[in-house]
Amino acid sequence: MVFQATTSAPVNIACIKYWGKRDTTLILPTNSSLSVTLDQDHLRSTTSSRADPSFTSDRLWLNAKEEIIKDGGRMSTCIKEMKRLRKQLVEDTDPNAPKLSTYHVHIASYNNFPTAAGLASSASGFAALVSSLAALYSLPCPPTTLSLIARQGSGSACRSLQGGFVAWEQGSQPTGLDSHAVQIAPESHWPTLHALICVVNDAKKGTSSTSGMQRTVETSPLLQHRIKNVVPQRMVDISKAILDKDFDAFARITMADSNQFHAVALDTTPPIFYMNDVSRAIIAVVEEYNRVWVEKTGKVKAAYTFDAGPNAVIYTEGENVKEIIEIIVRFFPQQETFKDPFGLFANDGGLKEGGKLIDGFNEAVAKTWELGSVKGLIHTKIGDGPRVLGEEETLLNAEGLPKTLA
Amino acid sequence: MVFQATTSAPVNIACIKYWGKRDTTLILPTNSSLSVTLDQDHLRSTTSSRADPSFTSDRLWLNAKEEIIKDGGRMSTCIKEMKRLRKQLVEDTDPNAPKLSTYHVHIASYNNFPTAAGLASSASGFAALVSSLAALYSLPCPPTTLSLIARQGSGSACRSLQGGFVAWEQGSQPTGLDSHAVQIAPESHWPTLHALICVVNDAKKGTSSTSGMQRTVETSPLLQHRIKNVVPQRMVDISKAILDKDFDAFARITMADSNQFHAVALDTTPPIFYMNDVSRAIIAVVEEYNRVWVEKTGKVKAAYTFDAGPNAVIYTEGENVKEIIEIIVRFFPQQETFKDPFGLFANDGGLKEGGKLIDGFNEAVAKTWELGSVKGLIHTKIGDGPRVLGEEETLLNAEGLPKTLA
Repeated sequence: MVFQATTSAPVNIACIKYWGKRDTTLILPTNSSLSVTLDQDHLRSTTSSRADPSFTSDRLWLNAKEEIIKDGGRMSTCIKEMKRLRKQLVEDTDPNAPKLSTYHVHIASYNNFPTAAGLASSASGFAALVSSLAALYSLPCPPTTLSLIARQGSGSACRSLQGGFVAWEQGSQPTGLDSHAVQIAPESHWPTLHALICVVNDAKKGTSSTSGMQRTVETSPLLQHRIKNVVPQRMVDISKAILDKDFDAFARITMADSNQFHAVALDTTPPIFYMNDVSRAIIAVVEEYNRVWVEKTGKVKAAYTFDAGPNAVIYTEGENVKEIIEIIVRFFPQQETFKDPFGLFANDGGLKEGGKLIDGFNEAVAKTWELGSVKGLIHTKIGDGPRVLGEEETLLNAEGLPKTLA
Repeated sequence: MVFQATTSAPVNIACIKYWGKRDTTLILPTNSSLSVTLDQDHLRSTTSSRADPSFTSDRLWLNAKEEIIKDGGRMSTCIKEMKRLRKQLVEDTDPNAPKLSTYHVHIASYNNFPTAAGLASSASGFAALVSSLAALYSLPCPPTTLSLIARQGSGSACRSLQGGFVAWEQGSQPTGLDSHAVQIAPESHWPTLHALICVVNDAKKGTSSTSGMQRTVETSPLLQHRIKNVVPQRMVDISKAILDKDFDAFARITMADSNQFHAVALDTTPPIFYMNDVSRAIIAVVEEYNRVWVEKTGKVKAAYTFDAGPNAVIYTEGENVKEIIEIIVRFFPQQETFKDPFGLFANDGGLKEGGKLIDGFNEAVAKTWELGSVKGLIHTKIGDGPRVLGEEETLLNAEGLPKTLA
């Protein structure tokens, strides 16, 4: 009998940003955060795990390359915690259950997006790891319980265990047992919410978010104000905007919080910069797009947000994506033909440059950038939580080693 | 009899930044600020003013181009206030004094640095205007009194009426009569303090500081915290650092406050950016320079600060300027030979590129930028307040019109 399971898990992009830990071991944040789960049809981590009495140690491969599982490290903690849950919730209550918690595991994980894309893969990666072990171990746990474990792998991973709109509540207990993710609304509540990822070229690797956020906690006078006086109200306001499907309110809070996150990074000693001149130009273009629509309708139609890197994620209603892509491509000509999963440009033979601007758009807000400044555009939408895949999707071969992928 | 006077006034660069007005007409700031006055031998505004019964209106020329003096505008306010002081303090007390307050004035002003250098000329310009009229009118006023008037022309101009280290105290009276500049220490207290201005190329003109700061006041949640909880202590700490000639403390506060000013600009809706990728690279280079020295001596040796634009001003002790220029030129090769007012590179035939790094400096903190990314370097030092110049320096010809300058 082979005990194994394969799951995939989504990427999430925060609207209210997580930046700062109050406990670096348990990964307890200094503020609550909230994200949108993106569709696994486009971006996902897939993980297979197998438990077998013949294995001599826990081993893990990421994109077919073995990663050392350091004792006391984050991967080790997640695996240990999942084994503990297996024993406690399954084996201790059902004497017939196989003692999988006593076996070593082999785990193979694969991201379908290049690391070079600069998308944080740790969130989807740890969510896939935890959901895969949860399936392997047949744990009767809701995602909120599993989020406590994913959180200890990578904080934002806890938000990738559910679809739709997910809040990570900071909690107050020193144990972290109330620092978990809860779903504010499922993806079906607002299925027309789309995302356009602008992958920005960056010469230099920025400060890692793990070390960067702690430097901010230690040195930024503004962070404390953000934590205590700004984020709590924004969590309330954006939850309401989501429940009301009020895109205008959702977008304004999302943009303000992205900017404030980068502001506290800049208020750090030494200062931390994640956005570059291309990121700034994308902001200028989206702000101008919104200015035109506010003038016409009183409401914004797009929201940019930037994580700990120069890439922009633009949230908008699906119906606006085509005109936004045209505008982006007008300022940031593309090397490669746009991959068009929603068939927006079916008759255009592939858009690369020179897209149309909308009426009233002030072209002078940005220059036309050199080819490759925005390396690629990824069009996706809101999506569901982790999926359990069929046996045929396994990433492990008969020997329990990673398959060679085509 | 010709009634005229010519004065020059210096540029000042703030260490604790002014950003935000509580009264936009009187120009009363939301927080106190503090600056270093730079040497007029290198950067200055020169202004001649003449009062004559034959003049039919108040007129002003800036760099020989006439500027319209709008009624109720800032120039008009300054001229009116100076006439009021003339009447009140001179004519009303001395019946023999000529009634200059009843004459119209002609004013010619000239900046010896190009507007394209991106250095704020309004501070030195309004300081020169006010000091020139003060000389014309023989006003028995200390600089602190005159600062009340310069402040109404351009807030930061009030700090250019004295040399050395100058604080603009925000004050609390609605009239603004206690919102004036005071000298913390004269230039002779710390004559070895030098400044290196890196003039950064910028494609786009940023948001004007006048409109930008009010948008920050209206929309940034972080600004209120900065005003109430951060700046007051920094004013105390940097004043002490100046009085102690403690460069390390002076530099750390200066850098943190520059970064915090840009952080609240970024926390504005829509966000305001003044620094670009070149500015960021200068920060990275100075931070690395300081890291090396902190490792060796526990103390930093340079402080960057950025106003509402991409140019860096680097404060340091005079003895370090040569090695800092070599490092800057290593990453930012220069089109023009460095103008070397202090004769640092007398034997080098003019430095343009490839300067030496100091031992232990990590070259990877920045790339070598294309020629012209930093358009020029200006080496100057701390300097004195406005100077009254001789008759032969006048910018006005016999007819009271601006002379044609060579």
